Amino acid sequence: MIQVYTGNGKGKTTAAFGQAIRAVGAGLKVFIGQFIKGKNYSELNAFKKIKNIKIEQFGRDCFIKREPEKKDLELAGSGLERVRKIISMGIYDMVVLDEINVALKLKLLKLKDVILLIKNTPKKIELILTGRNAHPKIMKIADLVSEIKDRKHYYKKGIKARRGIEY
Amino acid sequence: MIQVYTGNGKGKTTAAFGQAIRAVGAGLKVFIGQFIKGKNYSELNAFKKIKNIKIEQFGRDCFIKREPEKKDLELAGSGLERVRKIISMGIYDMVVLDEINVALKLKLLKLKDVILLIKNTPKKIELILTGRNAHPKIMKIADLVSEIKDRKHYYKKGIKARRGIEY
Repeated sequence: MIQVYTGNGKGKTTAAFGQAIRAVGAGLKVFIGQFIKGKNYSELNAFKKIKNIKIEQFGRDCFIKREPEKKDLELAGSGLERVRKIISMGIYDMVVLDEINVALKLKLLKLKDVILLIKNTPKKIELILTGRNAHPKIMKIADLVSEIKDRKHYYKKGIKARRGIEY
Repeated sequence: MIQVYTGNGKGKTTAAFGQAIRAVGAGLKVFIGQFIKGKNYSELNAFKKIKNIKIEQFGRDCFIKREPEKKDLELAGSGLERVRKIISMGIYDMVVLDEINVALKLKLLKLKDVILLIKNTPKKIELILTGRNAHPKIMKIADLVSEIKDRKHYYKKGIKARRGIEY
């Protein structure tokens, strides 16, 4: 199945992580590829200690605050290549493509390449895509789309991103 | 901060679990109390192996398919009492009350008791409430509300709940 978590609210990446935890609890093997994101995320520490979850990052930090550069394109491109290889290995039951919707929106990846990857993924693999602004064509081929809507957010009270909560 | 994950889409409980993972990756301690739910959840296996996450269940299985009984009320009530104690211990940085919105909706808990618990929780503790149909009064006192909307779901294609994915 293809699952998509999109929308402007908090909970997209964490929903995918929760799926990963549930999966390993059932004996499944999980690969998590994080597009755009760099090293400064607490989840990296936690997942490294969990057997049967492999996490890799295909980006640099603080992306949102600047324009995409050539290096970002290269990292996203080689990330997608890595995911293709991971899927073809056939050892993972679940593959999470965190923030891939944002990488598409920023044109770090080509839509046709991502759609091809989705279509070539064996049906038995649970493929999970996260990030706001999911492309309509991605939602069309997905089996499940959850839109997380921001009804209320403490950012608006001036609360900044907190370690262990937002990153 | 008080976070609420509600709505009819997939991803509420898993978003809370992802928050728990991120938190332990940052060195925080997490308590997860699951209302309504019984033993047959894969997350239980996974979390038991993760240091600094404690998970307990305050329910029985297959709840949704039958009417609430006296035993369910007792389990939910003693669950809330347990959470009160956990919070007063002061050793957990994050407390997840999974499916508590559903327990409220089913009148297994009293709204005023849950609101009192929220109001008595020290500000430094991140309190996370999940479950569809969150009560408006709960959303009013929350700092963050994410509503997860079901835009598309494979249930509608006749796909049944799968181990490692839905439970």
